Amino acid sequence: MFKKILIANRGEIALRIIRTCREMGIKTVAVYSTADRESLHVKFADEAVCIGKPAGAESYLNVPNIIAAAEITNADAIHPGYGFLGENAKFAEICGQNGIKFIGPTPDQIRSMGDKVTAKETMIKAGVPVVPGGEGLLPSLEAAKRIAKEIGYPIILKATAGGGGKGMRVVFAEEDLERNYDMAKNEAAASFKNDGIYMEKFVEEPRHIEIQVAGDRYGTVCHLSERDCSIQRRHQKLVEESPSPFMTPELRKAMGDAAKKAASAIGYESVGTIEFLVDKHRNFYFMEMNTRIQVEHCVTEEVTNFDLIKEQILIAAGEKISGLDYEPTMHAIECRINAEDPYNDFRPSPGKITTLHTPGGHGIRIDSHVYAGYIIPPYYDSMIAKIIAVARTREEAINTMSRALSEYVIEGVKTTIPFHQQLMKDENFRKGNFTTKFLETFQMK
Amino acid sequence: MFKKILIANRGEIALRIIRTCREMGIKTVAVYSTADRESLHVKFADEAVCIGKPAGAESYLNVPNIIAAAEITNADAIHPGYGFLGENAKFAEICGQNGIKFIGPTPDQIRSMGDKVTAKETMIKAGVPVVPGGEGLLPSLEAAKRIAKEIGYPIILKATAGGGGKGMRVVFAEEDLERNYDMAKNEAAASFKNDGIYMEKFVEEPRHIEIQVAGDRYGTVCHLSERDCSIQRRHQKLVEESPSPFMTPELRKAMGDAAKKAASAIGYESVGTIEFLVDKHRNFYFMEMNTRIQVEHCVTEEVTNFDLIKEQILIAAGEKISGLDYEPTMHAIECRINAEDPYNDFRPSPGKITTLHTPGGHGIRIDSHVYAGYIIPPYYDSMIAKIIAVARTREEAINTMSRALSEYVIEGVKTTIPFHQQLMKDENFRKGNFTTKFLETFQMK
Repeated sequence: MFKKILIANRGEIALRIIRTCREMGIKTVAVYSTADRESLHVKFADEAVCIGKPAGAESYLNVPNIIAAAEITNADAIHPGYGFLGENAKFAEICGQNGIKFIGPTPDQIRSMGDKVTAKETMIKAGVPVVPGGEGLLPSLEAAKRIAKEIGYPIILKATAGGGGKGMRVVFAEEDLERNYDMAKNEAAASFKNDGIYMEKFVEEPRHIEIQVAGDRYGTVCHLSERDCSIQRRHQKLVEESPSPFMTPELRKAMGDAAKKAASAIGYESVGTIEFLVDKHRNFYFMEMNTRIQVEHCVTEEVTNFDLIKEQILIAAGEKISGLDYEPTMHAIECRINAEDPYNDFRPSPGKITTLHTPGGHGIRIDSHVYAGYIIPPYYDSMIAKIIAVARTREEAINTMSRALSEYVIEGVKTTIPFHQQLMKDENFRKGNFTTKFLETFQMK
Repeated sequence: MFKKILIANRGEIALRIIRTCREMGIKTVAVYSTADRESLHVKFADEAVCIGKPAGAESYLNVPNIIAAAEITNADAIHPGYGFLGENAKFAEICGQNGIKFIGPTPDQIRSMGDKVTAKETMIKAGVPVVPGGEGLLPSLEAAKRIAKEIGYPIILKATAGGGGKGMRVVFAEEDLERNYDMAKNEAAASFKNDGIYMEKFVEEPRHIEIQVAGDRYGTVCHLSERDCSIQRRHQKLVEESPSPFMTPELRKAMGDAAKKAASAIGYESVGTIEFLVDKHRNFYFMEMNTRIQVEHCVTEEVTNFDLIKEQILIAAGEKISGLDYEPTMHAIECRINAEDPYNDFRPSPGKITTLHTPGGHGIRIDSHVYAGYIIPPYYDSMIAKIIAVARTREEAINTMSRALSEYVIEGVKTTIPFHQQLMKDENFRKGNFTTKFLETFQMK
């Protein structure tokens, strides 16, 4: 087993990883930018190394500094968390070249899923259903017009290097294609330094349902059921739950099998997620694979009683997994608490948390890196906490979440707590009646 | 279902009950003494009524004021919590006379278990094993001497109206009997206004293992497995867990059956606990029944996924229980965080909490009524939080607890956190190698 793990990340996920390492008796090294000196991940790690200025490229994306920090502290493994270097094949490769174990899949596995066009081709070969669309990158506007005519509007344009909604455009009619084609290419170039875009049939009223998988280096793969992440705002997930209220045993079996096929196709060895779009007829289509731990992994932990970070570390250390699939025995819901103003278009609200009171009690888990007096820096993701409610039924989980949200006191900054409170009371949400479009018509009262 | 429940208690248990009521959509009324104006149970209830001065008799034991508060606020039920009026048959009776449902067993059921001598006689009749001892109250020192000779030293003297270790004396030889007999009688008279004492064989190296039961008014009884509460200091529990590391499937079956016999013998209708002493040969003896919710109910909740307060409310409202027994599917441990100085004989440390940072993450539940700036009043129980760790195995639960304790920051008062941290590292504790005497030789480092 590893003796010391460096966590190449910040915020709640850095703390999350430190917690499991401590429980496993593994020493930890935190790295931090100058903006994060007072962060809990720095305080709770066994050692901490400052790796640069606030901007991502100077610290949390600064590979030489991170590798140097690992060498100075004698860390034998690096956990990248999510975001930053979480799916960076080059970084995984450099870790290996320096004799440091990258806790995650191999560089080749990351690459095979990082490029969306390649990933889609791999999935088609593996027999995993994908959204109908033109094959490969779009060479020209003319080609785009032709393919769109073939598969029928609406279509969606996506950046091949994309993620987080950047470089994505939905087009409902041919007269809008040219404008959106240009915008998608420009956005892709600006965000990813790669203007390659491709086209898919746009699935209307879709649900975002993903399957958590785990695989080991001996070729064993299993799944830990699904998460429903349809509650999104501009492709950013806000609420996740397991099981999905839309799930049936047959659909879980089919999606679970497809997810395992997808992971097996690349010999995947770590925990990972296969994201699908599911239409109202319960047809499902591969969207992408996240070859890392996800923000919403906690809901799966609460319904299967696995510690996914621990599983990830064990797999990286060469342990075998059982190969059994796991079904949810409970219902868990996660709300992302962001320092954003839900009454003002979710505008970020960095600053000092003057008062903090955290809810607790039966069925409540809190994952958070903030404390009273903490100053939320303006440079990073605005998520300051995840609150997870778990109960025997979905209705009870919603009621527990609602109760806990009513106890949560965060003063000094605006947060998404009022949004979640309203959502938990929403009749359609409570009925499980929602798609990824749900929030487009949701109004704060 | 009840529309509004008054909670005749304070501290964490009042908050615990409010939480479940809120989740069930039931309105709540808090009552509070003048010392508890700033308590969270007051802030989080829908309504709150001040019922008197800090001394128990003037507020939380002041039956006329509590009944008046229920009538003013139109509460249709009262939950007594634990301590105070939690096992007061007279109070339960007065509630009924005023048309208010007492959430707990009937006055007769409380009475039948409240008097320890009567309870023991009932158990013998029901075929539940009890500790060998003289039957009934000791009429005189001479009788005590005679009976002690019969059952053999060591023996224990106990107050019939007792609880919490008061009026209890262990006697190892006849020459110590007279002094201890007088002390036990005096302590019993002072504590309970009842100097009746009785004698039992003193079980050496015993474990305290209790069975959680539930019964409904239709005669159905079930058990929810055991809690091991052997980690005690002067008969006060400090750490509880489920399952017991000493348990075997055969012993659980035998103790579960005995506990159900005990509850059935009095037609018990609520959640309750049968406390047993278990000797090193796994013989078990009825000690007493607690006809109320217990502090340590949370560990059972975490391993069976029931909300026991909800079950208690449902049973009081006339719902049926399934009658199935429940075995632990996980391992849970609870540490009681008291405002006491473990380096100074656990002396109470009331005062202002200047800084508070609560742990979180996977497998951690916190039940607490305190917050940063809260002033712990000197009048009541010193418990300020319960921290519960749950995991797949006992070792993992201990590691999770240890990790969480290391994150817990409470400044301004002394707490038992350092005690628990040392305990979680103790080799014998980790091996499950302990009896109720364990803490007698435990030294703080």
